[in-house]
This record gives sequence, C-alpha cells and structure tokens, in this order.
Amino acid sequence: MWQLYQFPLCPFSRKVRLLLGEKGVGYELVRESPWDRRDEFLDMNPTGQVPVMADPTRNILLMDSMAICEYLEETVDKAAMINGTAVNRAGIRRLVAWFDAQFFQDVTAPLLSERMMKRLVTKASPDAKVLREAMKAAERHLDYTDYLLDHHNWMAGATMSLADLAAAAQISVADYLGGVDWKGHEQTARWYRGFKSRPSFRPLLSERMEGISPPKSYDDVDFDF
Amino acid sequence: MWQLYQFPLCPFSRKVRLLLGEKGVGYELVRESPWDRRDEFLDMNPTGQVPVMADPTRNILLMDSMAICEYLEETVDKAAMINGTAVNRAGIRRLVAWFDAQFFQDVTAPLLSERMMKRLVTKASPDAKVLREAMKAAERHLDYTDYLLDHHNWMAGATMSLADLAAAAQISVADYLGGVDWKGHEQTARWYRGFKSRPSFRPLLSERMEGISPPKSYDDVDFDF
Repeated sequence: MWQLYQFPLCPFSRKVRLLLGEKGVGYELVRESPWDRRDEFLDMNPTGQVPVMADPTRNILLMDSMAICEYLEETVDKAAMINGTAVNRAGIRRLVAWFDAQFFQDVTAPLLSERMMKRLVTKASPDAKVLREAMKAAERHLDYTDYLLDHHNWMAGATMSLADLAAAAQISVADYLGGVDWKGHEQTARWYRGFKSRPSFRPLLSERMEGISPPKSYDDVDFDF
Repeated sequence: MWQLYQFPLCPFSRKVRLLLGEKGVGYELVRESPWDRRDEFLDMNPTGQVPVMADPTRNILLMDSMAICEYLEETVDKAAMINGTAVNRAGIRRLVAWFDAQFFQDVTAPLLSERMMKRLVTKASPDAKVLREAMKAAERHLDYTDYLLDHHNWMAGATMSLADLAAAAQISVADYLGGVDWKGHEQTARWYRGFKSRPSFRPLLSERMEGISPPKSYDDVDFDF
C-alpha cells in the first residue's frame, strides 16, 4: 500500500490526497514535519520536502507533488483529472502551476510561516504586516477565481480537473489559517461549498494541526459568507 | 508559426527553447521584458510571466513553461524527453521541478535580481551578501548534479531527458551571470561541455542581454575548469 509522508496543513500533500481520494486509491498517512529535518526522511528526499509517496513493497519512491499527480494520471484510469485536447490539458496544467506557485507564494506560504511555523517552531509573534499583505493577495486571487468560475462551473472548464484540486488544496489551508474573507466572492464560495461535501475532501477537513484551531466555518459544508 | 515571448536570460524560456530545438519545431522570438508590465502582455497572461507561447493563426495561447513542455511532448513525437516507465517519468518530472523551483530560487533568481534587475531597472548596486549566498548554493547544487552524473550519463538516467534541458537552462543563466565556479565539478562540467555543442543550445549561447556581458568561458565549448 502507498504511504504518503505529509503534515495536515501541507497544501501540496492535500492536492495529492484529493487526487488519491477521487481515484479511489488507498494509502496510509505518515506524519512528517519537514522542519524537523529528520535524517531518515532526508535520505529519502534530499530536498526535505513533503509530499513523498512510497510503496516499499514495490520499491517505488515518488517526490514532488506534480510528478506524483502526473504518475497517478498515467497509472490510474479512474477519475482522469488532466483531460481533453492537448490545449485543454495545457490550460489545466497552467492553472495548477498558478495555484502551486503564485497562490502559494502570495497567500498560503506567508500564512503558514506566520500562523503555523511561528507558533510551532520559533515561538515568535506573527507579523501583522505580512498577514495583511497575504490577506490582500487572497482577496485579489479570489477575484481571479471568481472570474474563472463566472465562465464555467469548474476552474479550468466544464468538468472538474486537477486545477480544482490544486485550488481547493491551497484555499483550504488558507481558510484554516483564517486568511480568507469569503465576502464578495460568491462564485468561489459556491464552488468551494460544493467541493467541501465531496468524499475525497471530508477526511482532510476533519483533521487538525496540533495547537492551531481553524475558524468555525472551516469544515462547515453550509458556511455562510 | 509559434511565437515565443521571452527575454534572453529567462531560464524557463530557455528550457522551452531547448525542447523546441531538440524537437525541430520552428518558432519566432518575441522580446518581452516582464518587468515593464506591458498592458498588451498582461492581457495575454495576467501573471505577467514569460514564457508565453502563442500561435495566433490557430488561436492557441500557452503559458507556464512546464505546461508548454508537456504540450510539446504530447503533440510532437520527435525527441521525446519525458520517457520510459511511469516511475521513470515521475523521476524526470521531479528533477525538472527541482531545477525549476529549488535551483532557481537558491541560485538563478538571486543572480538575476542582483546582476540583471539592479543593473537594468533599479540602478542599485548588487548586494555582496546575497551574491555570496547564491554562489554557495550553486556550489552545493552542483555537488548534487555531480552525484547524479556519477551514476549515469544524463541527469535522470541513461538517456537525455527534460531534466537535462531544465538543468542546462538554469545553469547557463547562472554561468552567464558569473555565478558558477566549475572547479571541483568535473562530472557536471563534462556533461555541460557536451551540451554546449548541441545545435539546440548554440543559438542561445550566442545571444547577449543588453548591458550585461558573460564571462569569457560562457559560450566556449571547450572551456577549461
């Protein structure tokens, strides 16, 4: 069985878990806190990053969340999430890269650094200016997802794709850390409410990161905004 | 014909150009300086990033260097660069992601910021501490590529792959900006010397960024180290 090395608030691990869930692939969670820089983990992945997906019985070791997702797309037929013509597929991959890089850099990463790492590791106070900037970026980026969802039901078109999983992964971590103000983002809120009731997403929403509580609406499927 | 929006020292555009070259796909260069934030370009790509690859006659617009590379892999049979079993392909994609994210963040990005952006845009002096850190990271990362090339002839195995193109793209920009000390990196230097004489790479090496000169050895195929 697959083992997935991750921690609950890692957005990249969430993207992989959502894909595993949609495809109905079983896996076992292995808790890994990359900031501990555990020797055995660094031997597996010299970059020290999660997620890592391993199947020790078949001697398979996969790293980098997008490489893992492409692997799952190539090896599991069910619930294909990079679909359509080559141009459609390029559009899906572009949006995944945008959530993984831009949304992460501007929103999720500073929230994780100020509200998780400082609480758990450095014991410093969050920097109010950095938090303000992250929330301003979230506002701007949700305007963009509103725009995408104005045109069709899902982030990259008429059907659900890996772009939706990447989006839900980043947005859910930002939401857990209190970085999302849903007011004025009806399209994205509607999409997210639908997403929250998916069986692939429920288990993630019920998990908690030690010492950090999400806002009340976080795992509420019918949240108001 | 494809149009590729880029500037000479963009490592991500170089990766795409190397792939286009290996596949023998013709294209026209369009010079785009993302820091100018040109309105017409932002209309094409709201992130403002290069490369963007467009074919106006077929109304195709592709963004994000990895999405473009996957598109080329899917649509052009010649010179497949993401090859082998699903596990091999995951290994190639993981290395591409490592060069695109880690090597870029630690080495290429600070060199571009200190030695290109400060010269061309802000007219400030480069920060010696940042440059020192970037060169230390280059040293460490070339130790890793030496290790990879100790085991086989190419970055991801016995045959050339997109991992080599991604590596050559990042390393060549770092080399142009004087950030690479080749001493002690025989394996990587040997691989790079071979790469420099490829017809896909020669045109890139002959280009210059206005106002910034590379070291003498930069486009020398037989450079000593």
